[in-house]
Amino acid sequence: MNQNTVIEKLGRRLRLGVIGGGSGSFIGAMHRQAATLDGRFEIVAGALSSRPDKAIRDGELIGLPLDRIYTDAMDLIREESVRPDGAEVVAIMTPNDSHFIYAMAALDAGLHVICDKPMTNTLSDAKELHKKATDSGLVFCLTHNYSGYPMVRQARSMVEQGELGTIRLVQVEYVQGGKADENDPVTDDVVPWRYDPIRGGPSLVMGDIGTHAHHLLRYVTLLEVQSVSAEIGAIVPGRKTHDYAGALLHLTNGARGNFWVTQAAAGVENSLRIRVSGTRGSIEWHQEVPQRLEYKPLSAPVEVRTPSGPKLSPLAQNASRIVAGHPEGFHEAFANIYKDASEAIASKISGTSPSSLSATFPTSYDGLLGVMFVHDVIESSKSGGKWVECQSVDLVTDN
Amino acid sequence: MNQNTVIEKLGRRLRLGVIGGGSGSFIGAMHRQAATLDGRFEIVAGALSSRPDKAIRDGELIGLPLDRIYTDAMDLIREESVRPDGAEVVAIMTPNDSHFIYAMAALDAGLHVICDKPMTNTLSDAKELHKKATDSGLVFCLTHNYSGYPMVRQARSMVEQGELGTIRLVQVEYVQGGKADENDPVTDDVVPWRYDPIRGGPSLVMGDIGTHAHHLLRYVTLLEVQSVSAEIGAIVPGRKTHDYAGALLHLTNGARGNFWVTQAAAGVENSLRIRVSGTRGSIEWHQEVPQRLEYKPLSAPVEVRTPSGPKLSPLAQNASRIVAGHPEGFHEAFANIYKDASEAIASKISGTSPSSLSATFPTSYDGLLGVMFVHDVIESSKSGGKWVECQSVDLVTDN
Amino acid sequence: MNQNTVIEKLGRRLRLGVIGGGSGSFIGAMHRQAATLDGRFEIVAGALSSRPDKAIRDGELIGLPLDRIYTDAMDLIREESVRPDGAEVVAIMTPNDSHFIYAMAALDAGLHVICDKPMTNTLSDAKELHKKATDSGLVFCLTHNYSGYPMVRQARSMVEQGELGTIRLVQVEYVQGGKADENDPVTDDVVPWRYDPIRGGPSLVMGDIGTHAHHLLRYVTLLEVQSVSAEIGAIVPGRKTHDYAGALLHLTNGARGNFWVTQAAAGVENSLRIRVSGTRGSIEWHQEVPQRLEYKPLSAPVEVRTPSGPKLSPLAQNASRIVAGHPEGFHEAFANIYKDASEAIASKISGTSPSSLSATFPTSYDGLLGVMFVHDVIESSKSGGKWVECQSVDLVTDN
Amino acid sequence: MNQNTVIEKLGRRLRLGVIGGGSGSFIGAMHRQAATLDGRFEIVAGALSSRPDKAIRDGELIGLPLDRIYTDAMDLIREESVRPDGAEVVAIMTPNDSHFIYAMAALDAGLHVICDKPMTNTLSDAKELHKKATDSGLVFCLTHNYSGYPMVRQARSMVEQGELGTIRLVQVEYVQGGKADENDPVTDDVVPWRYDPIRGGPSLVMGDIGTHAHHLLRYVTLLEVQSVSAEIGAIVPGRKTHDYAGALLHLTNGARGNFWVTQAAAGVENSLRIRVSGTRGSIEWHQEVPQRLEYKPLSAPVEVRTPSGPKLSPLAQNASRIVAGHPEGFHEAFANIYKDASEAIASKISGTSPSSLSATFPTSYDGLLGVMFVHDVIESSKSGGKWVECQSVDLVTDN
Repeated sequence: MNQNTVIEKLGRRLRLGVIGGGSGSFIGAMHRQAATLDGRFEIVAGALSSRPDKAIRDGELIGLPLDRIYTDAMDLIREESVRPDGAEVVAIMTPNDSHFIYAMAALDAGLHVICDKPMTNTLSDAKELHKKATDSGLVFCLTHNYSGYPMVRQARSMVEQGELGTIRLVQVEYVQGGKADENDPVTDDVVPWRYDPIRGGPSLVMGDIGTHAHHLLRYVTLLEVQSVSAEIGAIVPGRKTHDYAGALLHLTNGARGNFWVTQAAAGVENSLRIRVSGTRGSIEWHQEVPQRLEYKPLSAPVEVRTPSGPKLSPLAQNASRIVAGHPEGFHEAFANIYKDASEAIASKISGTSPSSLSATFPTSYDGLLGVMFVHDVIESSKSGGKWVECQSVDLVTDN
Repeated sequence: MNQNTVIEKLGRRLRLGVIGGGSGSFIGAMHRQAATLDGRFEIVAGALSSRPDKAIRDGELIGLPLDRIYTDAMDLIREESVRPDGAEVVAIMTPNDSHFIYAMAALDAGLHVICDKPMTNTLSDAKELHKKATDSGLVFCLTHNYSGYPMVRQARSMVEQGELGTIRLVQVEYVQGGKADENDPVTDDVVPWRYDPIRGGPSLVMGDIGTHAHHLLRYVTLLEVQSVSAEIGAIVPGRKTHDYAGALLHLTNGARGNFWVTQAAAGVENSLRIRVSGTRGSIEWHQEVPQRLEYKPLSAPVEVRTPSGPKLSPLAQNASRIVAGHPEGFHEAFANIYKDASEAIASKISGTSPSSLSATFPTSYDGLLGVMFVHDVIESSKSGGKWVECQSVDLVTDN
Repeated sequence: MNQNTVIEKLGRRLRLGVIGGGSGSFIGAMHRQAATLDGRFEIVAGALSSRPDKAIRDGELIGLPLDRIYTDAMDLIREESVRPDGAEVVAIMTPNDSHFIYAMAALDAGLHVICDKPMTNTLSDAKELHKKATDSGLVFCLTHNYSGYPMVRQARSMVEQGELGTIRLVQVEYVQGGKADENDPVTDDVVPWRYDPIRGGPSLVMGDIGTHAHHLLRYVTLLEVQSVSAEIGAIVPGRKTHDYAGALLHLTNGARGNFWVTQAAAGVENSLRIRVSGTRGSIEWHQEVPQRLEYKPLSAPVEVRTPSGPKLSPLAQNASRIVAGHPEGFHEAFANIYKDASEAIASKISGTSPSSLSATFPTSYDGLLGVMFVHDVIESSKSGGKWVECQSVDLVTDN
Repeated sequence: MNQNTVIEKLGRRLRLGVIGGGSGSFIGAMHRQAATLDGRFEIVAGALSSRPDKAIRDGELIGLPLDRIYTDAMDLIREESVRPDGAEVVAIMTPNDSHFIYAMAALDAGLHVICDKPMTNTLSDAKELHKKATDSGLVFCLTHNYSGYPMVRQARSMVEQGELGTIRLVQVEYVQGGKADENDPVTDDVVPWRYDPIRGGPSLVMGDIGTHAHHLLRYVTLLEVQSVSAEIGAIVPGRKTHDYAGALLHLTNGARGNFWVTQAAAGVENSLRIRVSGTRGSIEWHQEVPQRLEYKPLSAPVEVRTPSGPKLSPLAQNASRIVAGHPEGFHEAFANIYKDASEAIASKISGTSPSSLSATFPTSYDGLLGVMFVHDVIESSKSGGKWVECQSVDLVTDN
């Protein structure tokens, strides 16, 4: 099970400043609970809203003293970075278009960064931010939280250990119904930021969930997307942003993939699903029942792997907090990303190295690949389904 | 539940001659059990093998008298069609390349035909056979047996009744592991007929299972494929026939689809799965647990529909033989196709009309569309993923 | 897979006469389809109803010639047993109270018997019939059809092979909703035979489903019930026959059991479920998804066994007709009982021995134990839950 | 979703002292995470171990200042209750035998109490503690945490709203495999406290999990157990404490119940399951997949209710923190109990009334009924399965 290591040696919690995530934000509460669940972070400062009154009220609600509540995130970064007891890390959970500016500023100020996905809206921003993060020597963690589920980690370990053999075929899909209702009141006059291409990014469906599916595929298979033949668009009439995308994929080892994401599937809750087949067997995982990983060997009965159950890899064991049969869920998976980040940050602070069990959290590199993938999908779709070589391939080769 | 209608008025079983399906053929036993399960057909003649000794032995094994055992299917067709007590129908379950010649001969001889899928290997044969079947006034039934499952029929009814609203998104997949083993002894020297492109058709995976997936999509959605962007190939190294295909689809009402079939997913048994989302809700069906149809309305709890359970359409009710909770399976679904065909044939014989509940079985029209789809997928793949207008669209428009 | 053995050597189908099961009888169609599915029986005679006109009409409907349609079952037994081409076996599917008289007569006439459960209504009848069956040297098969499911047979094999270690704990339950509706029109004035204690037996719920659960427990665990502490009664107000029973059990090796059956659980379809735990692992099987057997080893991941899948016992393999992933259901399980019986009967006829794979079908011995168990449950319930030594224990010891 | 109410008006977190739950204690971490997840409690003091060195180290590990770390729980109670900034609540998670002494002392000192189950080991202690808690006017919360799952609360609401009609039949079971291994090193020489009848209570299986099952039955059905016919014992040879119990139940409205608990089912993880049937339908819930509640109406399709999904009661809605399809688990259910308790405590402090949505958490009354039930089961078992009137019935009548 979940073990303290570097953070324990550090002997104290990491000081965290939160940017965004005020009342009414689903993801805000998730980030804060993820940060504090394991007692590894202490929230010391916050700029929870760009509206001053809301920023103050929401800051008080989460127990911050008035002098650590900021009405401008840039103030938080500047002031906390110079206080002796200031935040060492900022967690950014603002609308997508401001990830870049805050993250850049935080890194410039010497703060470690935990940032919601997608990393940025534009490719040039993503490249610049990745370069900055790499050069800074600081920790940059991107919260592709689904990779924190114990059984996703078990899947990755099984691929890594060769239990599936050579990967041949992958299906990844992320199907939701949240944007299926055609009578939904969202119109052009009163768009939330997600529907605004400037603030929400070039592709609603890809920014919201497509980058999660892309990261999950890469996380589990340890392969990259080499080329893509895709279509992306809006299936709900009159919608001005994408609500579905489909793609066929070639992966770097020659494996074939199928990618399907949509937010317009009426009645579906949060169906992120991955299936991977190799020469020796297949695995299947479904986010709505995350406590099961099905392993289908080539010539033996199907096995079900469960958190804290038998035959788990150390990576998967380290991601559970509880004995077998007691389901953990979304919160705990999210907290695993924060836990990994805390180990990396504590290592930087104490000049040690984190365990490899904490080293699989998503970084600016994953964020850059995600933004590139969004662009490649759009480009292939524009060209009528033509196969597009992924820009990320050079990056992968360079890396 | 399942009711006799026209066949009961006819007052006797239909006389069936079987072509192919000798010992060792999985599908042969299925056809014969499907034909006889409901007491609607009597097997009176057979040419079970092209090897004379095997034809005789296998014919005796299924209880045929020696004078109704044929060592050449053409003899069966010629002789049975002129006997006063001769077969009225032939069921063809030979390798794919001979479907055409036997079906043409049977229709020419005035016999009704029940034929295994795919209808033919070549497009020109499919067109010619479809024309012949249409002109003959005889019944031509193609055994896309998965459309016989009660819950597949319930799905179709729900689409037809508008319970899903306008169809927006479809995912259909057929994943098997039977050809996943790279150490499988099948080589170029000793190919079974399925691996031989002349006998098995241009695409193993499409002929075996892709046409089933294509038909299932059409059967449930009542839509046609308008255009396709696809890739097809062999993922197992050294294999000379296709073992996977992926495609993005545009359907005739503008809906988007995702299509994925493979026989190379190690450890997967027979995972045919369809999901359809409309403006009012989604449905999901999985062949490995065929007794469940999940219905996910836009804003109400998920419902599970079961055979002989509450709220079924007459079409679905008519496809069950048993009270709720007693699973029926593959055999009974297959038998539903034979049952439908028996109603159509008895109607022809007695000059009446079958109930609309028996009128959804696949015909030469569906067979032709299936063969066309195989060609469209191959063409799009050859052209590098380009969207290809389906040839079938004109046919649909004409029809 | 399912293989012909003795019946194949015999070179012909067995001649079967059916008693009961006219139109409107669910179980009648099941028996006839089970008998003919594998081509092992030919239905040559029938007395399908005690109402002469219905007997004739129903006989014609299933294709019998007029001279083999009987309006009295005793006539069928007498006449068929002396015809040279007469029935060799009778299948009895009449109301429970007439099982005894027809079965006795058939055995006296030298006919093998396949009989629906419960074997008889009274204990004295059960004892007499069991003695007759044993002395006759004829085959007596009782259709506890759930023991025909491939995964139930796999469960038995795993117990037999010691894969579960010493059995410690068993839960068996059979929950249905068919008699849950309190507004059901069945009243004292118009009782179907099942509600009539003389015709339906002393306990509706035990006769209908309790004896199935009891047999399933014994079939899978290879243990007998040694003593029982039970309650039985009617939960629906005003009902004059039992609709639920619960019991705690001691099994012959000291294992503990829990038994629960009811037909008054609104909305439940046909939930027969067994769970067995031994020192080395547990198994779980549920009739509503019969194609899955879960095996939970003491310290290894859960495995799912499937029909025709990997690691099956010969007993389980012999019970499937089809490749993995193509669900078989209730019909095919029922047919497995007929198939076993056909092997035993053909062996008697040809003077050979059937394979041990065909030797697990229920007999008059199982029927007698079932009737005894019904009485023990009622006795314990009457005595206020007191532990009652099962009468069957002596029988078991004798056997 | 989960809303702040009274605690928000109070404007601060409640000050909590923790007793027990040092490193190595699974339940300790659960309690602390449950307390802090929603930002409603601040852990200000602790006596985490009875071993002074461990108490200090573990206290520091969870971030307590040295002067709030106690090496004796009685010191914590005495000193914190007089500090101006002292703990207002204590959470007791020590071995079962010390619950009584600490809870009594805390109540005497005017502190609210959150206590792990079972409440006490002896019936006389339970009665005395319940009286004290009632008389004190303080909040006493017993952590039967499974009643915190959103879908358990939905089940209760559906019963309360009459959606199931009159309750007729209940099955509750709690099956685990944690004590199945007969080669487990636990012996008489080195017993953990759970195996010691003085410290762990008269019945290991009932104290550990039986009281949970009993509470769940009462929580969901809103009925009490009136009488019981039971057996309890050890199925693992040589074991000196109970590892299984079975019982038939009469509930206060005449409904019948079946109760089955064991910790000796090899390979089973944590299978707590409840099924309730009423005149209008049934519900089924299983702790291992807690995000699903199946509702089976008398004559309509099965519905699946999910957290934050459609058609939930306010009680269930209030128990989720997240949008539909994002699984919450054991931690969040446990936290719901703490959340409810925080509302009750904050109400006492501020002199207001908590919302009825927060009023279903278990109290000393439930704890007393649980301890009484353990004794009734043991008494019935000793008397050979005789039906025993539950002592709690008078209590219920009085209440």
